[in-house]
Amino acid sequence: MTGVAAAADWAWAEIIAVGSELLVPPRVDTNSIFISDALNAIGIQVRAKAIVGDRRGDLAAVFREALARTPLVILCGGLGPTDDDLTRDAVADVLGLPLEEHAGVLERIRQRFAHRARPMPDVNRRQALVPRGAVVIPNEQGTAPGLWIERAQQIVILLPGPPGELKPMFSRIAEDRLAVLAGAERVYRRTLRLCGRTESEVEQVAFPIYSAWMTGPVPIETTVLTAPAQIELHLTVRSASEPAAAARLDAAVAQLRVELGDDVFSVDGRPLEVVVGEGLRRKGWRVAAAESCTGGLLSSRLTDVPGSSDYVVANAVCYSNESKTSWLGVPPATIADHGAVSEPVAMAMAEGIRRRTGVEIGVGVTGIAGPTGGSESKPVGTVAVAVVTADARVVRTYRFPGGRLRVKQFASQMALDMIRRVVDGCEVSGAFVVRPSQELRG
Amino acid sequence: MTGVAAAADWAWAEIIAVGSELLVPPRVDTNSIFISDALNAIGIQVRAKAIVGDRRGDLAAVFREALARTPLVILCGGLGPTDDDLTRDAVADVLGLPLEEHAGVLERIRQRFAHRARPMPDVNRRQALVPRGAVVIPNEQGTAPGLWIERAQQIVILLPGPPGELKPMFSRIAEDRLAVLAGAERVYRRTLRLCGRTESEVEQVAFPIYSAWMTGPVPIETTVLTAPAQIELHLTVRSASEPAAAARLDAAVAQLRVELGDDVFSVDGRPLEVVVGEGLRRKGWRVAAAESCTGGLLSSRLTDVPGSSDYVVANAVCYSNESKTSWLGVPPATIADHGAVSEPVAMAMAEGIRRRTGVEIGVGVTGIAGPTGGSESKPVGTVAVAVVTADARVVRTYRFPGGRLRVKQFASQMALDMIRRVVDGCEVSGAFVVRPSQELRG
Repeated sequence: MTGVAAAADWAWAEIIAVGSELLVPPRVDTNSIFISDALNAIGIQVRAKAIVGDRRGDLAAVFREALARTPLVILCGGLGPTDDDLTRDAVADVLGLPLEEHAGVLERIRQRFAHRARPMPDVNRRQALVPRGAVVIPNEQGTAPGLWIERAQQIVILLPGPPGELKPMFSRIAEDRLAVLAGAERVYRRTLRLCGRTESEVEQVAFPIYSAWMTGPVPIETTVLTAPAQIELHLTVRSASEPAAAARLDAAVAQLRVELGDDVFSVDGRPLEVVVGEGLRRKGWRVAAAESCTGGLLSSRLTDVPGSSDYVVANAVCYSNESKTSWLGVPPATIADHGAVSEPVAMAMAEGIRRRTGVEIGVGVTGIAGPTGGSESKPVGTVAVAVVTADARVVRTYRFPGGRLRVKQFASQMALDMIRRVVDGCEVSGAFVVRPSQELRG
Repeated sequence: MTGVAAAADWAWAEIIAVGSELLVPPRVDTNSIFISDALNAIGIQVRAKAIVGDRRGDLAAVFREALARTPLVILCGGLGPTDDDLTRDAVADVLGLPLEEHAGVLERIRQRFAHRARPMPDVNRRQALVPRGAVVIPNEQGTAPGLWIERAQQIVILLPGPPGELKPMFSRIAEDRLAVLAGAERVYRRTLRLCGRTESEVEQVAFPIYSAWMTGPVPIETTVLTAPAQIELHLTVRSASEPAAAARLDAAVAQLRVELGDDVFSVDGRPLEVVVGEGLRRKGWRVAAAESCTGGLLSSRLTDVPGSSDYVVANAVCYSNESKTSWLGVPPATIADHGAVSEPVAMAMAEGIRRRTGVEIGVGVTGIAGPTGGSESKPVGTVAVAVVTADARVVRTYRFPGGRLRVKQFASQMALDMIRRVVDGCEVSGAFVVRPSQELRG
């Protein structure tokens, strides 16, 4: 690190992703999200991001503009061997540095090809070109090295585009080279996840709280993200003191927990299925699910958790009425009297799977995922969920918005949440529940 | 449309997404992907994209630069009522247009609040400010209208940030206003999906073919996207003639099908589970799955398809050895002799679920998803899949890369693909299959 570079203000960075293919749907630039996260962790914020195609003029213009604003500019992609790969040329141009063949890099590329018993194509020679004075950052996963260029008060970093090469390389750069520059300030985060309220219900309670946090000596920024039957609150603090940041965030999290109560299921980003697994382990319980409309999604989420074979024995997906009867012992009369989508059938499914498997907690889910099968009294999105243990019998009918896949997501989430609440002995939430005035019949 | 605007070259656009929250992970700017897709459909390509935070200077600079390069600039976000919402100010500034309160817009905002029996907060008045001469585009879903600004040879479009407001508004703009400007050229796409080869195997076959397409009067651009056990080839053509584009793409697709054979499962973007469902319907067959390591994911994917209740009867997730025996009739001796992850057990699971449900085609999946449970002879990622019908008994052992969730994805995909091939009577592919030299034992 030169003294010049160390004297600059490294609180801000810009990211430029290079590649025409990144501008065509359905491609998403995931590299810049990874880089932003790694930068935030060491206290550097991203001021702007750009994606440019493989046009030298555009790339040079966007790079020049970023340099004019921001001390740290990170470019990813466009370091391949072909004519389309223009990043090193454009950067050398703008910085006024000649490109020189780097003997060490060339040798490494040759060795990579030799290792796979192939001659190095002549085009790959381009990848050994390095702007004069640049530091070469070895690429363990590919041929194009990264480049680190320092000039007065600025640093420019060039990274290869393939995520498998970029990610380990940038993690090393952030840790070894950028963290020392970035100074003492770091970004600290907490992620609260909750289930059992709608977004507007959460906003109503939480907004007055977190808008008060936005001022003061250690302001907290809050971002809200939603998924089916899940609200995430991301709390972010910048601070030079880890204890101060932690204390601030802990107090904030505690305040939200008081207001939001049992609906908060994790304060460290753990997904619901992991929280459910931990609850089951604490109790020494095993679970079994009988699913109709979720079609296996609930089972799949339960088993997404490493080690879940300790508490998942067997689950049944019973789509047909006949299989509900023959596998789970749901009485045909219950189906005939109440319909396959009904609280009595959900309850009989939960009881049946619990009895069949001998587990402590049984779950039943039956509903109408759509797009067909809905009726006026039971429209698409109507789902009954039941949880049964030795002591508890809980059943609710929900109405979820959205199409087939969203209804499956919602239903699996509310079923997991019902398991969590029964395991923890807390009250089952009323969000999305069909109100008495809309009582389902027939 | 003015004559001036119509005379410009509307082949290119730039997109600027505004909002500091978009620069903080895990947020992704999905608006620009939607806009790119809509633009591509009417023949307009995206030259560059930028994401800038809520800083007026940065926004003005990025907007100015885009204007200098590109005739059509689309900004999204930053039209809200608060001080952070700077897009209309920055744009008016750069274009040298005064902001004026628009009586019609103000009235509409007032009505929206009145409709919900709430007084309009004074801050919302800002949303009625319009750069002089701008065309107001009504927002059916929110308070901030869109704005369409024409100046010499250029068009600037301002869109509200919430996707639920932006998407319908931009779809209308693209269809009503941009399509006529864009001229006759359109972008046409085909998506080939295949399963049963690795990415490098596909590249080896397909690259010489599609690199030849890149020249000629109607060049085809090809993008490769990969997912677990799935390769997607996106073929894109720009043409003023739909029949010419269709003929070119049809010929290209046909050529790839010849080279890639049965591995191509769809040429119109249909996912594998949909193709499997169609195959089952053609045969009049029903399917049942017995899953261990995939934990319900295969069942969930089968039932992601609308109408799948016609051919999915019931599926079983048997995690424990005991449930494999009691539910599926897998002989304990088979498990003891070969291990729970073995071809004989996969076969017995497929036979068991087929017998239990009386369906035409039974599937069994057993494997080691990890992170624990692997051994030297059966490392994490080892999965046995079996498919049984009245006439066919197929079983393969695969070894998949990646962690628990990727192994589940790979295994569910290869199981679906095995169903497809057995239903269609074509050969089962050898990709990811453990070679005889690595034969699994014990």
